[in-house]
Amino acid sequence: MMAAAAAAGGKRCRRLDPALSRSVLGGAEAVLFDCDGVLWRGEAAVPGAAEALSRLEARAGKRLCYVTNNSSRTRQAYTEKLGRLGFPPAAARQVFGSAYCAARYLRQALPPGAAAYVLGGAALSAELRQAGVPHLGTGPPAASAAAACPEPLLAPAAWGARAPLDPDVRAVLVGYDEHFSYGKLCLALRYLLSGGDRDPDRCLLVGTNRDHRLPLEGGSAVPGTGCLVKAVETAAEREAFIIGKPSRYMFDCVVSEFDIDPARAIMVGDRLDTDILMGNTCGLTTILTLTGVSTLEEVKGHLESDCPARRNLVPDYYVDSIADLLPALED
Amino acid sequence: MMAAAAAAGGKRCRRLDPALSRSVLGGAEAVLFDCDGVLWRGEAAVPGAAEALSRLEARAGKRLCYVTNNSSRTRQAYTEKLGRLGFPPAAARQVFGSAYCAARYLRQALPPGAAAYVLGGAALSAELRQAGVPHLGTGPPAASAAAACPEPLLAPAAWGARAPLDPDVRAVLVGYDEHFSYGKLCLALRYLLSGGDRDPDRCLLVGTNRDHRLPLEGGSAVPGTGCLVKAVETAAEREAFIIGKPSRYMFDCVVSEFDIDPARAIMVGDRLDTDILMGNTCGLTTILTLTGVSTLEEVKGHLESDCPARRNLVPDYYVDSIADLLPALED
Repeated sequence: MMAAAAAAGGKRCRRLDPALSRSVLGGAEAVLFDCDGVLWRGEAAVPGAAEALSRLEARAGKRLCYVTNNSSRTRQAYTEKLGRLGFPPAAARQVFGSAYCAARYLRQALPPGAAAYVLGGAALSAELRQAGVPHLGTGPPAASAAAACPEPLLAPAAWGARAPLDPDVRAVLVGYDEHFSYGKLCLALRYLLSGGDRDPDRCLLVGTNRDHRLPLEGGSAVPGTGCLVKAVETAAEREAFIIGKPSRYMFDCVVSEFDIDPARAIMVGDRLDTDILMGNTCGLTTILTLTGVSTLEEVKGHLESDCPARRNLVPDYYVDSIADLLPALED
Repeated sequence: MMAAAAAAGGKRCRRLDPALSRSVLGGAEAVLFDCDGVLWRGEAAVPGAAEALSRLEARAGKRLCYVTNNSSRTRQAYTEKLGRLGFPPAAARQVFGSAYCAARYLRQALPPGAAAYVLGGAALSAELRQAGVPHLGTGPPAASAAAACPEPLLAPAAWGARAPLDPDVRAVLVGYDEHFSYGKLCLALRYLLSGGDRDPDRCLLVGTNRDHRLPLEGGSAVPGTGCLVKAVETAAEREAFIIGKPSRYMFDCVVSEFDIDPARAIMVGDRLDTDILMGNTCGLTTILTLTGVSTLEEVKGHLESDCPARRNLVPDYYVDSIADLLPALED
């Protein structure tokens, strides 16, 4: 991993052995963790991960935060899962999910009284409610394939092309939506065009994250929110503002709530294109753990590439698992 | 329009006056027409269009072909519409729709006995049946949101993530599908990954076209097939083979059935990014008609651009309507 060190702007993806761990952790005040693929896989905790976090918090006095692109769980659901799997007790305010951060963004960005049309599920709805953002659209579509269309060439025959628009809607928010449909896509487009030529930015377009796929246990995968964001962006012919990693908005949320100095913070994640890229972009020390999606083979490709954008995907360090941090956290 | 002529590789988007029309049409054997926005808008023929086509065929002896990206109508439906709106009688074989051309492509590309999983409607299904391509998936999903998912983090809860796969499927075809859903997207991804790492190209990915939107009468629009293609491409992390304009495959279909010399053929269309681009790419003379989507303002932008890709979007000529061809076709 060392050969192309200079090419990667100093980042060389060094293995974090116990001595190096002590020095890296020693300088840090806060450690940010991605969750799936880092702390657990499905409902199984990564062996040793809970103990590592307990020691980081209780013995080493680090502030822990949880930073996840998953928009289908609330902050509360994450604290419950952390508890259920034996991790140190966490407060909801330590959890930065893309559902919570999207609600936070819309609360600030929308004019008073304005609402969001949301492609997403119950968790996204709960975080929006909590933040006081009026919204509609989550869950299964209210009706489907209703009125026959008088123009047989197009025949969308979808309620989405016919349903009355709510005049308060000033944003379309795209999250993970297992009820995503052509009808919802029609309706999202109509809201996004509702300002007409006079006011094309009347309706904001926001996506929780761009993940292409969600890996399932056993090697298979389901389409991620990024697929739905792309569909809406293509229809609207504009780019969404993205909440989740690698967008720095998510780290901005952490900073605004905890006053963290990036130079004294560490980002630990299993994905180069989200976790590590956000950490590098925001000036954090980055650690790749190999219990999830990305591999050392991919890091090698980035290190050997002469494309500057790919160098930003190289972490400072890697571990096989965050349990590798345990020896450095002995008494 | 003339100022930046040289910059656009000789194409200058000149107005086709009667004298110029006579010379341009005089050298042509075949004229290819896009349909919506060129011959008609919705169910209303463009005034004078039917008469222009009658004269082109009957008096000037031109071969007429109809080339459309719309995948929600069969060849037969187009010949019926042409008849209904008073255009000269056309045979099904003169009509090249993206449904027909996609069926033709799959008939050639698929191994014997292989099937296609299709996101699309009845017309796409009819053309595949006519071409003898086994297929499944068109129309509303067979079941929906059935089995509860044991992994609450992901909870796709969609039949698409659970339904058994048909082992004969070797292609995913994405067309205009008003029943597009997250479940169908899941199933498409599973087929596209069915070859695993050993045979990643086991399952072809084909899109009928990339149109972002379908304009409706009155200035509104619904999402086009391109949105659905993008969603599937994003999940699969690969690019689809595209059948429709601006892909040259559609013109290849015309040539293989009618032995047309591109140098003696004209493409008439209302969209720069599909009709005109395909015509220019394939070496045809191109005519933009202003009864549809694209405007002279857009042409101006392309002419003034120093981006070589944009020069390919400049047509040779333009008319306000194809009725402008009438004077050149007097006896």
